[in-house]
Amino acid sequence: MGEKHGDQTYLFTNPPSLIGARSVVGPREAAGPLGQYFDLKINDPLFGERTAEKAERRFLVEACNATLEGTGVAGGDIDFLLAGDLLNQIISASFTARELKIPFLGLYGACSTVAEASALAGFLLDGGFGSNVLVGVSSHYQTAERQYRYPIELNLKHKLSAQYTVTGAGAFLYAKAGAGPYLTGVTVGKIVDYQIKDPNDMGAAMAPAAADTILQHLEDTGREPNYYDLILTGDLGKVGMQLTSALLEQCGVSLGSIYQDGGAMMFGGDPAQGAGGSGCACSAVITAGYVLKEMAAGKFKRALIVGTGSLHSPLTWQQGESIPGIAHAFVLERQGAA
Amino acid sequence: MGEKHGDQTYLFTNPPSLIGARSVVGPREAAGPLGQYFDLKINDPLFGERTAEKAERRFLVEACNATLEGTGVAGGDIDFLLAGDLLNQIISASFTARELKIPFLGLYGACSTVAEASALAGFLLDGGFGSNVLVGVSSHYQTAERQYRYPIELNLKHKLSAQYTVTGAGAFLYAKAGAGPYLTGVTVGKIVDYQIKDPNDMGAAMAPAAADTILQHLEDTGREPNYYDLILTGDLGKVGMQLTSALLEQCGVSLGSIYQDGGAMMFGGDPAQGAGGSGCACSAVITAGYVLKEMAAGKFKRALIVGTGSLHSPLTWQQGESIPGIAHAFVLERQGAA
Repeated sequence: MGEKHGDQTYLFTNPPSLIGARSVVGPREAAGPLGQYFDLKINDPLFGERTAEKAERRFLVEACNATLEGTGVAGGDIDFLLAGDLLNQIISASFTARELKIPFLGLYGACSTVAEASALAGFLLDGGFGSNVLVGVSSHYQTAERQYRYPIELNLKHKLSAQYTVTGAGAFLYAKAGAGPYLTGVTVGKIVDYQIKDPNDMGAAMAPAAADTILQHLEDTGREPNYYDLILTGDLGKVGMQLTSALLEQCGVSLGSIYQDGGAMMFGGDPAQGAGGSGCACSAVITAGYVLKEMAAGKFKRALIVGTGSLHSPLTWQQGESIPGIAHAFVLERQGAA
Repeated sequence: MGEKHGDQTYLFTNPPSLIGARSVVGPREAAGPLGQYFDLKINDPLFGERTAEKAERRFLVEACNATLEGTGVAGGDIDFLLAGDLLNQIISASFTARELKIPFLGLYGACSTVAEASALAGFLLDGGFGSNVLVGVSSHYQTAERQYRYPIELNLKHKLSAQYTVTGAGAFLYAKAGAGPYLTGVTVGKIVDYQIKDPNDMGAAMAPAAADTILQHLEDTGREPNYYDLILTGDLGKVGMQLTSALLEQCGVSLGSIYQDGGAMMFGGDPAQGAGGSGCACSAVITAGYVLKEMAAGKFKRALIVGTGSLHSPLTWQQGESIPGIAHAFVLERQGAA
């Protein structure tokens, strides 16, 4: 049974243990500077399937199955699958749930989904409901591009502020007990909307939510930023990361070198990928790959992972609406970090 | 802290109290046989807005605000908003969350969303996380029709097995304590897919999941159906309801007159609305309207509400996939029902 701190943060009494995680990525992600960290690198973005949508769900199924294999926990021992993706009606998640046959709760938080799912996994396990919760999210450049923007066959040049959807999937198995790292707390975000209307500048739309959730987390917990050795926003990209830093500085909070952004890192700053990576898979594969492996290697002891989502649709944009942003944060701490 | 029973069911130790609920419906729903039960009846399906999508979210905002007004609980006292709808990227829920400024977790369970959200509300409150959880879902005939099927201007005749999306929204305020009715338990469903491929026959696609979850609930709890005086599937319609009864009979379970279906009831069997109502709002407004009011009047003491979702998209149908069905169940019991 967790304890509420301040307005939006919960610290867990019996922190769930992250007993397994796997990242599966496509070739462009594998060729990026974080390539060494990913578990499975698939050369064919279509993963042998006939359509990009079928490929995306194959990435997700693979990530989930690889996670279970790595832990030796069987599908039948999982109490909940919490999953989501960017596609209309979260079909990648639902069709993956059909294959895995695990009680399924579908989520939509755009690129923040892995953080939303991790928060719920924490609530379920610390609340005493079940023993194992599997979290899985996916995204795919081709499926997102044709759903949100234009057919990829047009080969349009991306604006420098635009983000490039990560092809891949990440899965995480949280358990009631284990050797860590531990999910010690979460901050659930509110919508923040600074009236950004350009879907080619989602970093700017999400940055205010990221800053809001980070500030709320620090206020709710009474922690200084240096409680953490990593504060990672998942998928803001270069523009959103700069804006988040600027917004935090305005509030007197300077994160310095402990602040990193998954989107900005993913493609190594290549302008062909605009401002960097986005998509549900971005923060997920960076957490399952980079963060957890560097945590195991001793580089990080305590990480605050902030997933950010831009909750618009092509239709809301067409109807003149701005882009509501949201950010949820979760804390991973190594055994002995305290 | 709840207790797990069997494979998929959780009974709560400190059952949350449903301290408020409101149903808001459009004119066709108000004119149906359940019209007397609904709280707010809006004559204009566009609710004074310029587009159907903006109207749908106005229904949802109204339902949420009316629920809070009825209880005297302020938005700032709500720990979580759990909301979802049928639209791509659940824009009705996200834009409602922007207006309400409550920490927001977006869900997608198609027409089962109110049951999914109620289950999560139960886990959060019984788990000790927060004091008040607001659940809200919506659907709209015009938005669903043009997203899933054809422009409504074509005025196509519906197949008799097709369902007619309910225009409206329902909201529910669950609290840690109160005078009931109480949310005493939930059963979280798995995907069941009998390879139905016709989106004009969603009742048939969802019936196997409904039967599966009802059977699982009875097995997990060791209860006979007559523990309940109402078992209500939310939105199967006439075809799905008959198939669910038949599937249950095959397994030796006969529900008899305690079994009702919200979709079959909604429009009074008018063939102009095919097999009956569907959409996230269907089970929500029938629960907030009919079930809770008849419970307050003493007709029902214990109700098992089963929300059913068909987790396809137009794209999965175009790509030749069948329709994965899911059903989640939650139990409402009056004070003194035990």
